[in-house]
Amino acid sequence: MAELRASQIESIVVSALEEDLGQGDVTTEALIPSDLEAKASILIKADGVLAGIEVAEIVFHQVDSSLRFEKLAQDGMRVLPGDTIAVVYGKAASILKAERVALNFLQHLSGIATATAEYAGAVSGTRARILDTRKTTPGLRLLEKYAVRMGGGQNHRYNLGDGVLIKDNHLAVLRGGGVGLGEAVKKARENAPLDLRIEVEVETVEQVREALDAGADIILLDNMTTTDMHHVVELVKGRTLTEASGGITLDNVRAVAETGVDFISIGALTHSAKALDISLGLEFD
Amino acid sequence: MAELRASQIESIVVSALEEDLGQGDVTTEALIPSDLEAKASILIKADGVLAGIEVAEIVFHQVDSSLRFEKLAQDGMRVLPGDTIAVVYGKAASILKAERVALNFLQHLSGIATATAEYAGAVSGTRARILDTRKTTPGLRLLEKYAVRMGGGQNHRYNLGDGVLIKDNHLAVLRGGGVGLGEAVKKARENAPLDLRIEVEVETVEQVREALDAGADIILLDNMTTTDMHHVVELVKGRTLTEASGGITLDNVRAVAETGVDFISIGALTHSAKALDISLGLEFD
Amino acid sequence: MAELRASQIESIVVSALEEDLGQGDVTTEALIPSDLEAKASILIKADGVLAGIEVAEIVFHQVDSSLRFEKLAQDGMRVLPGDTIAVVYGKAASILKAERVALNFLQHLSGIATATAEYAGAVSGTRARILDTRKTTPGLRLLEKYAVRMGGGQNHRYNLGDGVLIKDNHLAVLRGGGVGLGEAVKKARENAPLDLRIEVEVETVEQVREALDAGADIILLDNMTTTDMHHVVELVKGRTLTEASGGITLDNVRAVAETGVDFISIGALTHSAKALDISLGLEFD
Amino acid sequence: MAELRASQIESIVVSALEEDLGQGDVTTEALIPSDLEAKASILIKADGVLAGIEVAEIVFHQVDSSLRFEKLAQDGMRVLPGDTIAVVYGKAASILKAERVALNFLQHLSGIATATAEYAGAVSGTRARILDTRKTTPGLRLLEKYAVRMGGGQNHRYNLGDGVLIKDNHLAVLRGGGVGLGEAVKKARENAPLDLRIEVEVETVEQVREALDAGADIILLDNMTTTDMHHVVELVKGRTLTEASGGITLDNVRAVAETGVDFISIGALTHSAKALDISLGLEFD
Amino acid sequence: MAELRASQIESIVVSALEEDLGQGDVTTEALIPSDLEAKASILIKADGVLAGIEVAEIVFHQVDSSLRFEKLAQDGMRVLPGDTIAVVYGKAASILKAERVALNFLQHLSGIATATAEYAGAVSGTRARILDTRKTTPGLRLLEKYAVRMGGGQNHRYNLGDGVLIKDNHLAVLRGGGVGLGEAVKKARENAPLDLRIEVEVETVEQVREALDAGADIILLDNMTTTDMHHVVELVKGRTLTEASGGITLDNVRAVAETGVDFISIGALTHSAKALDISLGLEFD
Amino acid sequence: MAELRASQIESIVVSALEEDLGQGDVTTEALIPSDLEAKASILIKADGVLAGIEVAEIVFHQVDSSLRFEKLAQDGMRVLPGDTIAVVYGKAASILKAERVALNFLQHLSGIATATAEYAGAVSGTRARILDTRKTTPGLRLLEKYAVRMGGGQNHRYNLGDGVLIKDNHLAVLRGGGVGLGEAVKKARENAPLDLRIEVEVETVEQVREALDAGADIILLDNMTTTDMHHVVELVKGRTLTEASGGITLDNVRAVAETGVDFISIGALTHSAKALDISLGLEFD
Repeated sequence: MAELRASQIESIVVSALEEDLGQGDVTTEALIPSDLEAKASILIKADGVLAGIEVAEIVFHQVDSSLRFEKLAQDGMRVLPGDTIAVVYGKAASILKAERVALNFLQHLSGIATATAEYAGAVSGTRARILDTRKTTPGLRLLEKYAVRMGGGQNHRYNLGDGVLIKDNHLAVLRGGGVGLGEAVKKARENAPLDLRIEVEVETVEQVREALDAGADIILLDNMTTTDMHHVVELVKGRTLTEASGGITLDNVRAVAETGVDFISIGALTHSAKALDISLGLEFD
Repeated sequence: MAELRASQIESIVVSALEEDLGQGDVTTEALIPSDLEAKASILIKADGVLAGIEVAEIVFHQVDSSLRFEKLAQDGMRVLPGDTIAVVYGKAASILKAERVALNFLQHLSGIATATAEYAGAVSGTRARILDTRKTTPGLRLLEKYAVRMGGGQNHRYNLGDGVLIKDNHLAVLRGGGVGLGEAVKKARENAPLDLRIEVEVETVEQVREALDAGADIILLDNMTTTDMHHVVELVKGRTLTEASGGITLDNVRAVAETGVDFISIGALTHSAKALDISLGLEFD
Repeated sequence: MAELRASQIESIVVSALEEDLGQGDVTTEALIPSDLEAKASILIKADGVLAGIEVAEIVFHQVDSSLRFEKLAQDGMRVLPGDTIAVVYGKAASILKAERVALNFLQHLSGIATATAEYAGAVSGTRARILDTRKTTPGLRLLEKYAVRMGGGQNHRYNLGDGVLIKDNHLAVLRGGGVGLGEAVKKARENAPLDLRIEVEVETVEQVREALDAGADIILLDNMTTTDMHHVVELVKGRTLTEASGGITLDNVRAVAETGVDFISIGALTHSAKALDISLGLEFD
Repeated sequence: MAELRASQIESIVVSALEEDLGQGDVTTEALIPSDLEAKASILIKADGVLAGIEVAEIVFHQVDSSLRFEKLAQDGMRVLPGDTIAVVYGKAASILKAERVALNFLQHLSGIATATAEYAGAVSGTRARILDTRKTTPGLRLLEKYAVRMGGGQNHRYNLGDGVLIKDNHLAVLRGGGVGLGEAVKKARENAPLDLRIEVEVETVEQVREALDAGADIILLDNMTTTDMHHVVELVKGRTLTEASGGITLDNVRAVAETGVDFISIGALTHSAKALDISLGLEFD
Repeated sequence: MAELRASQIESIVVSALEEDLGQGDVTTEALIPSDLEAKASILIKADGVLAGIEVAEIVFHQVDSSLRFEKLAQDGMRVLPGDTIAVVYGKAASILKAERVALNFLQHLSGIATATAEYAGAVSGTRARILDTRKTTPGLRLLEKYAVRMGGGQNHRYNLGDGVLIKDNHLAVLRGGGVGLGEAVKKARENAPLDLRIEVEVETVEQVREALDAGADIILLDNMTTTDMHHVVELVKGRTLTEASGGITLDNVRAVAETGVDFISIGALTHSAKALDISLGLEFD
Repeated sequence: MAELRASQIESIVVSALEEDLGQGDVTTEALIPSDLEAKASILIKADGVLAGIEVAEIVFHQVDSSLRFEKLAQDGMRVLPGDTIAVVYGKAASILKAERVALNFLQHLSGIATATAEYAGAVSGTRARILDTRKTTPGLRLLEKYAVRMGGGQNHRYNLGDGVLIKDNHLAVLRGGGVGLGEAVKKARENAPLDLRIEVEVETVEQVREALDAGADIILLDNMTTTDMHHVVELVKGRTLTEASGGITLDNVRAVAETGVDFISIGALTHSAKALDISLGLEFD
């Protein structure tokens, strides 16, 4: 899976800075002499996993390419309160203009990486891998999926164009037209781009059989009991991949993983992760 | 404060759809006849306050302007599990393409409105009003600040260009150069755009006095004890506005409000709100 | 596979019009009264398959939304010299401004559809389907792949992000590092996005065995003799899909198809198709 | 006529790369270690004239500015099968990502330069110069007109805004309103921008006289016999420029040139040129 | 010469509105009920020629498409203090948001049209026509050249790409390399796009002869005395067009025109025109 | 107040160059050898204050980053006829392409700075400061407000979003709904963003009292006599800021300033300033 592509991040960063700068930082311009030098430390204030340090670096350099950004940590590392993850040297005015946007990215992405790492830790030792979903914040999918990888998760399809997933709503509509699950899977094999696997969402063991017979490549088990998941894993015997989804929490994720499913996908990784507390302290240099 | 401006939302919606559609919805295109009609209900699955229904409407219309979107609720309304907030009629394929993006906006914004409403409810009856901060998700500030208003909060400055706020980091750098808080406030009065009020962050009652003497318009009390806030409110006697900030939780927000401060600002409203659970059910029409 | 998405075409059309209009059509503006009405016929001047009529319609409407565009043919239809495929009514000046860009799209896309139809016709009755490649004209891939479909072909992956294809150059580099074809296929299965099938390019029957053992989903037979292709098809026995590529011409394509391969991919469909001769005749209405 | 302007090419290159990269090169990312170095040779596989080597260089540098691109040939040079026109050193992954887009530009533009050179060669020794038309591929006019120059052709007007050309369709509409060719030429002289010459399309010798009398600067002879062209050239005696157009092929172009016309314009240079066969070979470095 | 193209104006208008609206009209939003209806009159407060009324209309409709804009005057008309040129009906809030931008366009463009009309009036009855230059306000050339036409002037080349004008600085550099004026004109005839006339700037009658001999199409007389201009006009005898330029004022323009030159170009039309005083009066409807 | 932000200027410069270059500088390309070196001097031809030299530098570097631009003067400096403010060394062709756009910016901005300096000089020794307005040229507000600062003026609000100013048209509409000036000021205090001061436009001394009572922060005196302004200044006694506006000329500005108002705002600074005469002389180097 791709590392972050600089050009795409830059355009996100530029937009974020425009959003935050407006007509310019009136406070800093009124107060801080433009040639005043300072040193800033970026400090961790809670346990977590870091993500976004290179984004933060781009933020500072986008504001002022003469700032020196010293990374003291890498994305994907565990961090603790009191850790200094980077030091920035240069014009105080530039650091002040970049501060909030850099922290907003760092806190949001590290929050996602931290949540992912909690789930990944909870299933360690099982075959299950933690997957994200398309339940991401509009405009930030690229970065959020990157943060999931930094937390030890794996990415599901990026968008509707690069993965076939026949969901309950597809099946509901097709059923109304007299088309069943198996037939849907076959139709997808025939019509979908030849480079893509076929995944289908099921709710019962019976549907799993139908999906297998129709040649599905991946089966998504939606809101199934762990007992049923066990049955499914035995039934499938590795002929397809299996993915559990729906109602997964830190409390039940290990039990789900122990059923033997290949993947567990969790929307909350990206839509409800708490920001990791990170701050910037500035001092006269 | 401005209502949402359609042209700005449209460009955010278009980007979000491009992000989610990629080369097109290969599953739907492989399976769903392009003229098949369906009906979709958007369902609330948790207690909360709604925000984003018009954004969702724009999403559906952007995908297919022939879809009929019937709003059954308004932004700012309280919603309960089981509530149907909108029904969409039209091409099943179009609804399926719009579904995820529409829900991503609705869940994120309603999550923020819901969190804001909890804080606003906790301080009801006091003079304090709940404010947001610049700790927003990059690219979504406009919508997130709208969601705060829908939850009963009020917006602080939109960006660095439309409000003067002398923060601890400004003061730290100035102090290094021998410039104190009072002098900073005076300098800001002189140099900042004439249309803007001057707000300054303080940590001690002593600093409040300095800010008052220097003619600050608003004083931000950072991480102060409620006892100190009481002192400050008495000291200020309405000559300036006061804003409490730092470490505010649902547990302590009422106590803070009861000190008599004018505003309480809370970053978590926008950076750590949990998505409100909302889903879309499709049926053959 | 997706039909054309209007918003994407519109931006291509707008760019093409800007490219062709520059500071405005100085000839037409100097000569043609702005309220003069005319009727234009779009005429086929060579045998072929039509593609791009809706793009042409968008061109005319983009220049002047009051033009009436009457389609007399559909994309994908066979056309003959003398056929009128559309009639446009409205301001003469608008028609003259749109003429060249509309024809440029029509001629280029119909040229591709026509070339594709020749290959598709040549293999009719066999199981082989004609595929395009990524050898498209920069900026026009969406439209060119659409034209291939209109000519009866099928699309291979749209870009590097939505299909895994291990090519000779990947293998050459990996071989230098001591990694063989089978190992590469396994590595791809493990690391590539879970939604994608794994395709690998081979040159010998021996490599086909290696690919099969490693679990490839599709095998690309590069520049193989038809004798070898026969062997491969028997060897594979439907366990994977097979695709022939390299040096395919109208003269040899049927022989290739008769080996039993599933797909035949041809770069010339998009990089060397001759424009179909189409013109516009204007008359005073 | 302008050499290529870097900023314009860069935006075309960036679009082409976005079109081809999508969410990233999943194959290369799954297989090729990101620090693996390689050497690539760009090889000619057919006789032709080179065009686009600087565009290719921009492609590689856009993907990875650390790649070293050694040009071994210049645009406008004749090339033969087996010629290596450039060598690229650097990260294998970067070269693989850039390969297809670089080749697509090179093959397309060299195809146009090659076709142009064939026509230019066929008329060498005559006064006639080969011109292109506005029958270009949407979005690539700048590059295609550059390729025509590289092949030894000359450019006609870039777009509708920088040349006056009264065509058959203008005349047809004007005729309907009772305005003849001579009157049209005069009207154009009066109304068109003062910096532009007036060119008019004619089909008969009689019309040539009318155009001459009305003061046309250039006369376009549309689909005229070479006998008629002879008459025209004698009639005009250098008072205006003459341009032959319509139905020109490699078989008849010399005969047309020998009539003494100043220019011969050929749409097929840009709308139907065959791509020149060029490939990239990668090796472990 | 082209009338205004709506799509180009719209993008200029959208930018201007974004520039003026920022985060929204905070005054109007704080005070004016969003459903309050009003009527606005646009009033002329000085003698002049109107230009920009359609731009103003686009401004109002861009802010709120439900506003009704009644034009009571046309661009190019003379206006007097007290004239109401348009009335706008609809939401007061929308009118207030559009007011300043609409007036800024109207005042600026009418200022240019008014200045142009003064010069055009001063030369009426002579053969001379008033031309603009490239000395326009960055970003507004299209509109400013339109305003010149509305004032009765004619446009010189739009930009460096659609007219050949050999200026003093070209000649100075060429002279350094031993190339004279006549040679420069010949070189331009040979190398410049075939659709363009060749204009050359001269300072002496001697240079006029050189230009004539070399086949220039237009001769620009820079800062020449009217006596010399007389000589030139007699010398040229209509074989080329002549254009006077440099130091033209309302006081001397008639004398220049009476020398018989074809054109007089004046930079001040666009770079120093005084805004025409125009205001908007709002009333409760 | 912010210095110029490079990224914003660059996009304005790029647009201006695109506007002026079109398909390229056909004259220079036809005549000037691409490797010819030259030296250009930028010369002042009238008394004034310089503004825009850094914009000019960006123009030259945008056209050709290898040009050497030596600044011999700074924005804000007084300049005299004959002063050379910069020398440019490098490719003659590049200098010729950049010349007009660089001069257009310099002349326009220096014109504004010069006009501002005249007004600022006229009030020197008084407490009054010269302010600009929103009556700027669409698209150039950022630069024009910068030029005002260079001329010794101060900026009023940048746009409708960063300052509250209750104008006559607001009051007219509110009056229709029965809301008076005092009530409007109070409503604004309550509803407008908390970071902004409240300014209100008045025409009579009576209204000043109403504004004071309602707690206005700034009072705009529209078209008041100097006698009335005197009264107002005495009445206000520094409790609010005062701003005079309307009908200000160089003849009366000192009298206005001597009334003791804090600010005098003048639309003509930006909408009617005469361009400062500046030229570029090129010589063979």
